[in-house]
Amino acid sequence: MKFTVSSTLSYDIFSDTTFFFNIMAMKSDTQIIESESLIITPAIAFEEFTIKNSDNRFIKMEVKKGVSFTISYQAQVVTSYKQIDEQTLLKPMPFIKMDHDVLPFISPSRHCESDKLMEFAKKNFGSLPDAYSKALAIEDWLFTNISYVQGSTNSSASATDTLVRTAGVCKDFAHLGIALCRALDIPARYFAAYASHLNPPDFHACFEAYLNGHWIIFDPTKLAGLNGLVKIASAMDASEAPIAIYFGDISCTHMDVQCHPVSPDFTPFNWDLRRGGAISY
Amino acid sequence: MKFTVSSTLSYDIFSDTTFFFNIMAMKSDTQIIESESLIITPAIAFEEFTIKNSDNRFIKMEVKKGVSFTISYQAQVVTSYKQIDEQTLLKPMPFIKMDHDVLPFISPSRHCESDKLMEFAKKNFGSLPDAYSKALAIEDWLFTNISYVQGSTNSSASATDTLVRTAGVCKDFAHLGIALCRALDIPARYFAAYASHLNPPDFHACFEAYLNGHWIIFDPTKLAGLNGLVKIASAMDASEAPIAIYFGDISCTHMDVQCHPVSPDFTPFNWDLRRGGAISY
Amino acid sequence: MKFTVSSTLSYDIFSDTTFFFNIMAMKSDTQIIESESLIITPAIAFEEFTIKNSDNRFIKMEVKKGVSFTISYQAQVVTSYKQIDEQTLLKPMPFIKMDHDVLPFISPSRHCESDKLMEFAKKNFGSLPDAYSKALAIEDWLFTNISYVQGSTNSSASATDTLVRTAGVCKDFAHLGIALCRALDIPARYFAAYASHLNPPDFHACFEAYLNGHWIIFDPTKLAGLNGLVKIASAMDASEAPIAIYFGDISCTHMDVQCHPVSPDFTPFNWDLRRGGAISY
Amino acid sequence: MKFTVSSTLSYDIFSDTTFFFNIMAMKSDTQIIESESLIITPAIAFEEFTIKNSDNRFIKMEVKKGVSFTISYQAQVVTSYKQIDEQTLLKPMPFIKMDHDVLPFISPSRHCESDKLMEFAKKNFGSLPDAYSKALAIEDWLFTNISYVQGSTNSSASATDTLVRTAGVCKDFAHLGIALCRALDIPARYFAAYASHLNPPDFHACFEAYLNGHWIIFDPTKLAGLNGLVKIASAMDASEAPIAIYFGDISCTHMDVQCHPVSPDFTPFNWDLRRGGAISY
Repeated sequence: MKFTVSSTLSYDIFSDTTFFFNIMAMKSDTQIIESESLIITPAIAFEEFTIKNSDNRFIKMEVKKGVSFTISYQAQVVTSYKQIDEQTLLKPMPFIKMDHDVLPFISPSRHCESDKLMEFAKKNFGSLPDAYSKALAIEDWLFTNISYVQGSTNSSASATDTLVRTAGVCKDFAHLGIALCRALDIPARYFAAYASHLNPPDFHACFEAYLNGHWIIFDPTKLAGLNGLVKIASAMDASEAPIAIYFGDISCTHMDVQCHPVSPDFTPFNWDLRRGGAISY
Repeated sequence: MKFTVSSTLSYDIFSDTTFFFNIMAMKSDTQIIESESLIITPAIAFEEFTIKNSDNRFIKMEVKKGVSFTISYQAQVVTSYKQIDEQTLLKPMPFIKMDHDVLPFISPSRHCESDKLMEFAKKNFGSLPDAYSKALAIEDWLFTNISYVQGSTNSSASATDTLVRTAGVCKDFAHLGIALCRALDIPARYFAAYASHLNPPDFHACFEAYLNGHWIIFDPTKLAGLNGLVKIASAMDASEAPIAIYFGDISCTHMDVQCHPVSPDFTPFNWDLRRGGAISY
Repeated sequence: MKFTVSSTLSYDIFSDTTFFFNIMAMKSDTQIIESESLIITPAIAFEEFTIKNSDNRFIKMEVKKGVSFTISYQAQVVTSYKQIDEQTLLKPMPFIKMDHDVLPFISPSRHCESDKLMEFAKKNFGSLPDAYSKALAIEDWLFTNISYVQGSTNSSASATDTLVRTAGVCKDFAHLGIALCRALDIPARYFAAYASHLNPPDFHACFEAYLNGHWIIFDPTKLAGLNGLVKIASAMDASEAPIAIYFGDISCTHMDVQCHPVSPDFTPFNWDLRRGGAISY
Repeated sequence: MKFTVSSTLSYDIFSDTTFFFNIMAMKSDTQIIESESLIITPAIAFEEFTIKNSDNRFIKMEVKKGVSFTISYQAQVVTSYKQIDEQTLLKPMPFIKMDHDVLPFISPSRHCESDKLMEFAKKNFGSLPDAYSKALAIEDWLFTNISYVQGSTNSSASATDTLVRTAGVCKDFAHLGIALCRALDIPARYFAAYASHLNPPDFHACFEAYLNGHWIIFDPTKLAGLNGLVKIASAMDASEAPIAIYFGDISCTHMDVQCHPVSPDFTPFNWDLRRGGAISY
């Protein structure tokens, strides 16, 4: 599928500030950037880089006190994904054969205190026969038991907070999903994305569980089609994948995020159809 | 300095279990392994690996239900360290020039909720003129205000818990130190080590702050000499650097950890002498 | 029903200490003390009192440094209870007619943060038609979803902790039950008791919900018969009803608690039979 | 001193609602109500009551769905207070002689988890020679270390939250003060009041510590004169002394609170002068 994605962010700068932005679509075998542009108005020098343990793309720049600027990213991205059939997912994969680089995604993180949710996870999902069934049940449980409520949360909320509040936004659904997977020894990670058909448009967050060698995508909010995602970042949780990290005194004055399929006849992936095969980007 | 380090861990295994151990001394320019051995009794096949974002060395192995085994690691390690003078540390280093791979160490993590400690950190250390002074003041503050008390903590404790309890063990000191540094925009990471002169002998934890291009070591417990450390792992916090990760039902029945200088006239680094120059491994 | 209850507590005293004990059976219309004795060995002067807002009976005494003593309470108590039929409980009672002294039991307390559980309570029990059905459903939910596990908790645990851990002991069940009731605007309070047929014998904790003018008893652990309780104290939560409050440096060296029906043919109240009518002490 | 106090609260009512208001000045030996009026517009029947364990005055009323109403309370109140000299406060008072009704105020409560702050309190204030010095030091510590910041808190915040955030409003200062006192075995309670010279005008919260038989007032915000207070309620903490408890769906649309000395030459009590003698209402 081909998508046009864009984000436009405006800031007022009250002290000399260094910014690190993570808003560019990721480059991978399953996600090809056909074209992209990054325009900063007024013009400010910037540098792009990735860090060694990830494919997340960062932009860094220094902005002087008193400046007001806008950063606009736009890209045309072609995504593909594999549909992994149940037989493949249900084949037992011993931990010893797990890709080594997956190992960190079994540990708890700032917003995903899987270590505190061992008993809860076991009690609610532990009797299911395999990791795929558990991850699907977690996704369903989140959709049924947690309410999507704008303003019900803040940047400090973690998985146990969301469990108690039973409400949150997309990042909170993702965090609780990740924490429950890890509590059941299923590696899981945060998936930051542009998403089509989100209303209102915004950045989106889902999660991936590592099942029999594949990172399978789950969206417990069911707000976006699973085929309508353009990946920005993989991370332990939202704390590792912020849109912007900055060192200075600033104010964000405007934000606009868009994601549109180029083809007029794009159909968001019907949720239940997915049951015939899991999606891996 | 040359050290003999060893650790011996015994386990009873109640279900087929996969283990990942992280007990081997790290290899680096400043830490040379002269010799090492890993003996598992009874013999069990194992594999060594590192993951792409770190130099932490892992051993993995599968153990059958019903087995009782002992893993014994022993090594002779030569460590060196640089003494960085204050002039170097005090030179202002702009964020934009920071090594990119340091960026993750500014984010909060499971046990280091730096995002919750912004005001506390600013209020107590924010008026100090530079990052090095802040990190030193944090180390001193921890030593003065937090009590080292065996059994005062558990594996779930985080930096804010330790702040409220005012007591902990070495990992808790390290976590609160890391969180306070990150809250002040100083990258900081967990440093798991063998340490000489610890009483009782055990694994040790310190922290490193990234100051003007150097990872400087701090030990707020003041329990081990700064020149008596043999590094095992760098990590966001203890959740990323456990001695053992396992998938199965087990019980640890015995643990012995040793670290001894080979030279009889080794003198633990006098804490206050350090003030003339920071230590970087 | 007639019961013999007893508790024997021994202490070593390391500094001059003032004790307040709350181990005596409560006196009320439905609980008659036929005989009781309190023996302190060696003899120490004590005074009995109640405080103005409750019928909880306290013993206070001063003990000198260096003393080791045992306090032994024994009583023969006749309890009665009313069985309130559903029709009575289901009659709507407007808040405006609620006994004024019940008002405090709608507020959150140390271990019952009902204010944090509003959404959870509404989501899980809010659709039930009346307060009695809600309280019954809470009791059942606790029995099904929380595991009774010795050692799974500590004195600091609160209702939200228990919700996340899904495990606790009798006080934790009571706290979560109370918090969920209050979150649904049902006044609820802690019920500390001697209980027959507890294994191992110990002090017990249940909760009462205020339903249409009656304090109805619930025991979500289902460990004791509802007709086998001898009340010690009513309280907001366990923090207000400790066995002993003390000011000094002490160690409890022994504790024995007993509660036995005098009649050999006493039958613990069958749980399901209760459904035909709620129990009010 | 004579004060005119008033509060005016307006509500929109979306479902039949029962209200309990606690906005009337308390009646006591040291606080005489010369005149007062309570006007509800449009007229709604109400009833006044107190509950047995306190002198807090409640108004209750039922309001129908669809009504918008305003409740206006106004009173002229004469307050007096005792100045207790240091000699009196420093006389050691054994716990055994403590007024029994004070006992509950040593327990932790919803917003004052004194049980979690034992070590912190001991470490920071435990070496002071007597309870009065400790309470004064706590008040000073709060004033110095906690920032008064509107909007830095919410109704859920507790003493340990405030300790970590180092910011709050008057209720948070009071809660942390109460918790630290109780952690040191000093009974302490919440003091809700009208206060002159508050800017902006609002309800105010202080705390009282029970010292040698007297409830001594402390205001760690130092925002109001200690002689400018008109007491509304005593309570374990704010959860027991809300302005309004309601059962229904409502919105508060307006609030105005006033407190003015009648005498033009009233001078707020100079903080430091207080050092010559503590204030007891």
